[in-house]
Amino acid sequence: MAQPVPLRGPRADRARRVADVLRRQIHTGAYPDGLPAEHDLATEFLVSRNTVREALGVLKHEGLIERGPKIGTRVAQRKYDHGLDVLLGLKETFTELGKVRNEVRAATPVTAPPAVARRLRLEPGEQAVYVERLRYLGGLPLSLDLTYLAPGIGHRVLEHPLETDDIFALIEQVSGRRLGSASLALEAIPADAHSAATLQVPDGAALLMLERLTSLDDGRPVDLEYIRMRGDRITMHGNMIRSHR
Amino acid sequence: MAQPVPLRGPRADRARRVADVLRRQIHTGAYPDGLPAEHDLATEFLVSRNTVREALGVLKHEGLIERGPKIGTRVAQRKYDHGLDVLLGLKETFTELGKVRNEVRAATPVTAPPAVARRLRLEPGEQAVYVERLRYLGGLPLSLDLTYLAPGIGHRVLEHPLETDDIFALIEQVSGRRLGSASLALEAIPADAHSAATLQVPDGAALLMLERLTSLDDGRPVDLEYIRMRGDRITMHGNMIRSHR
Repeated sequence: MAQPVPLRGPRADRARRVADVLRRQIHTGAYPDGLPAEHDLATEFLVSRNTVREALGVLKHEGLIERGPKIGTRVAQRKYDHGLDVLLGLKETFTELGKVRNEVRAATPVTAPPAVARRLRLEPGEQAVYVERLRYLGGLPLSLDLTYLAPGIGHRVLEHPLETDDIFALIEQVSGRRLGSASLALEAIPADAHSAATLQVPDGAALLMLERLTSLDDGRPVDLEYIRMRGDRITMHGNMIRSHR
Repeated sequence: MAQPVPLRGPRADRARRVADVLRRQIHTGAYPDGLPAEHDLATEFLVSRNTVREALGVLKHEGLIERGPKIGTRVAQRKYDHGLDVLLGLKETFTELGKVRNEVRAATPVTAPPAVARRLRLEPGEQAVYVERLRYLGGLPLSLDLTYLAPGIGHRVLEHPLETDDIFALIEQVSGRRLGSASLALEAIPADAHSAATLQVPDGAALLMLERLTSLDDGRPVDLEYIRMRGDRITMHGNMIRSHR
């Protein structure tokens, strides 16, 4: 075996590299009983204990781990994996991970703003149905979802229990059609003060913001959502293929 | 036309709904000459001017718009769109948007940490090639990319100009093969102090963190990357289809 070749450069750079590899290990459940001791991590990554400490500081700052003299270093929060490839509701996704509960903050007909009306192919001034839900998983807020539904389907969705059911499932139920596809945009934004309070995170906390327009399998757009997910509670994952240019 | 039905509820909730629709409008380039006046936005969204002001405050806080008595409300920063569906390098993606420049912070053989070695299917202790780049677009940092390459291909990639070329393109060039697919995980994290300084954002700023393992078209994993993207500069977008359960 060749002589080990450690990474060089400023300590903060080395700590970031260690933190990134550990973050993934934590996500995949590699440390159910807590992270290895500092000296073991130092050996594994060929860095000093000070560098390990700095890496763990980065992950603690992200809310991913807890550290203490008695508890050692343990995972504070396993992030939930949400798929980017397939179109699934939260409840469908997390069937095995715990109960999804929705606090319904609004469920009402509304005149869609013009930009929303265009995307749902409504006439100017036509009413849509607006639903706003704070979604909990395991007793803690996971996301705040703002949803505009096409009117015909939306009105029938309102007749069903939004506290427990996924809107995706309800759309399929009331329309008698399958959902087809969705176009989405994902970004990281800081939580404004009011959204932060609602999601129970610090002001300015990193949120994963998803905007998603979902269509039925006949191509009709029916569901436009603006979803703020707590950055410390969710990871989205998927697959890409190389396009043939 | 039906009587307009405005959204009701606390002002902060109404402001959030307005902000989310405007954010998308800004991303798609709807306001090249600045945003409409407050009273026009108030009419469009059926809300008060105070609500519009609060919505614009949310977007200003995200670094998306600038406001001033003389300049009105204008777009501070158009975000760059990066595709989730197809596997493209940054330079390939932004050919028409400006010059991508890479500051190469490291480019060196390294003993891969065990968790990295497993994902690249290396023997324990086997060397990989590590490349770290701070990527600029339009003169400002866009992302900080930490890359582990499989050794055979990695060593040959090092012989090429990493300041200007995408690693994806170099991998295909030196291997004589096409890239096949990638698995990725996306999350929102707060910038640690050192990463924030490197990316020229405030401490704790929201970053879009992408972890991506890319394979050749024969299935061999060759490129494991940890990419921190500035939340205020990039949006990732793509399409999903409904799985058949």
